[in-house]
Amino acid sequence: MTEAEFIAALRTLPLHAGAHGLGDDAASIGGLTITTDTIVEGIHFLPDDAPADVSWKIVAVNLSDLAAKGAQVEGVLLNYPLSDEAWDRAFLAGFAEALAAFDCRLIGGDTVSLPPGMVRVIGLTAIGGDAPAPLRSGARAGDALWVTGTIGDGGAGLRIARGEVGPDALLAAYRRPLPLLSEGRLLAPLVHAMMDVSDGLLIDASRMAAASGLAVTIDLAAVPLSPGYRAFAGDDHAARLAAVTAGDDYQLLFAAPSGIALPVPAVRIGAFATGSGLALTDGDDAVPLPPRLGFQH
Amino acid sequence: MTEAEFIAALRTLPLHAGAHGLGDDAASIGGLTITTDTIVEGIHFLPDDAPADVSWKIVAVNLSDLAAKGAQVEGVLLNYPLSDEAWDRAFLAGFAEALAAFDCRLIGGDTVSLPPGMVRVIGLTAIGGDAPAPLRSGARAGDALWVTGTIGDGGAGLRIARGEVGPDALLAAYRRPLPLLSEGRLLAPLVHAMMDVSDGLLIDASRMAAASGLAVTIDLAAVPLSPGYRAFAGDDHAARLAAVTAGDDYQLLFAAPSGIALPVPAVRIGAFATGSGLALTDGDDAVPLPPRLGFQH
Repeated sequence: MTEAEFIAALRTLPLHAGAHGLGDDAASIGGLTITTDTIVEGIHFLPDDAPADVSWKIVAVNLSDLAAKGAQVEGVLLNYPLSDEAWDRAFLAGFAEALAAFDCRLIGGDTVSLPPGMVRVIGLTAIGGDAPAPLRSGARAGDALWVTGTIGDGGAGLRIARGEVGPDALLAAYRRPLPLLSEGRLLAPLVHAMMDVSDGLLIDASRMAAASGLAVTIDLAAVPLSPGYRAFAGDDHAARLAAVTAGDDYQLLFAAPSGIALPVPAVRIGAFATGSGLALTDGDDAVPLPPRLGFQH
Repeated sequence: MTEAEFIAALRTLPLHAGAHGLGDDAASIGGLTITTDTIVEGIHFLPDDAPADVSWKIVAVNLSDLAAKGAQVEGVLLNYPLSDEAWDRAFLAGFAEALAAFDCRLIGGDTVSLPPGMVRVIGLTAIGGDAPAPLRSGARAGDALWVTGTIGDGGAGLRIARGEVGPDALLAAYRRPLPLLSEGRLLAPLVHAMMDVSDGLLIDASRMAAASGLAVTIDLAAVPLSPGYRAFAGDDHAARLAAVTAGDDYQLLFAAPSGIALPVPAVRIGAFATGSGLALTDGDDAVPLPPRLGFQH
């Protein structure tokens, strides 16, 4: 089954009220915010990625979902497959670094053994406090679409991790993403909808628009690119399309009125309107959508 | 690393207060009780187990941890690897059955793809309400050790699932275990310590004793065996040792005064005393411990 088919089938089961119809970054239960993500060797991380980067990343990407809800971090549960001693110890070292960096505590978890020759499958569940952010379905017609920072760095970092030559800063963006926890907390009370950019700007923005029953237009020329990204990939149409369809950004994407005073830096990159679907412009010119909007699981 | 080494390393990290030192069936956070378990094809379930039994089992074993804390079920998050259509659909059917049977709701989760040839690794996180049961470290010298029902049926069912001939009731005990949620809820306010029997009666009882800083003696002759188990395996010393070292029972094991009036059926099978370690008797005779006390991950 595809992910979409499986989730559609799950939606026919008895859902908890806090599941938000399985359509948001995190669930809400008893004043807590909860999210879970699994990463698979060879799919979500490279077999030769440093284990300490893998553990950092699984913590960071889960906390990024809490950031999108403006939730304060309570802690995490780890589901870990034991393997060789050196890998396990290095994973633990990165895990400890990430917990310290994000003031996050270990709540629980479990360990399993995998049969010989199997790739690692690692799960993490993150729990936060109350989430002041609205659901991603809350965008309103007339809202602007905003993003908190540069797009494309993580995707470029993945290309560098796979062997291309490029700046260390991009590699770090891929290997050591930073969840925007304080930014999310400050933005949460002000925005109409918020999510993190994890699968790619275009696919994530189109998900917010679909959840909100709206159309969204994104101006490619307005999407902020880092100097490192421009040095690596250029700044032409193709480079911009590559940036907005790559994943691993972990910036916050939100809907809010275009004239709003914001407590953190953010860039207006598009607008919501009645209707449905995603449209792209490059400045004033309409441009066709790329065949692939982002990372589909 | 071994599981024990890994958990010892995790204990050096910043732990949440509700993690209970990573030494209990479930964590406590904000009035909720939370537990997580991963099951691996070929390790925790057989490749030819029916997918609907696998989904039933992952729900049941997680809810059994909530039962041990006397927590009411709130719901579960599922971490699921998509594979072939028929397997996924059958898994969903059993999942729906289990949710309905235990009045459990879906809170969230995620799906991943696994590389070709990879065994399935399925995770579940269960969340319950407030847990009135004490920690497993609460047993007191002089307490009796009690168990709510027959031991060994699940382990015998696993042997039948692997090809031996035996009663359907034992196979059902392995394939469709029942978490003792209402029993756990009734017992929780009365007991000094409680856990579920998942890895084997001897290893689980020795864990409760160690957590409580006590010695425990178990009388093999007092351990309740089902008629089906006796028909399948006999009732001699070897059959009793096999029963108390097999896993997959999901009975509740608890410490409480020997003369206590209990709200649910339970059998007194041992006693706690000052000291440390596990000792076995068979009636009045001391008997040696078997080399293996249960399932070690």
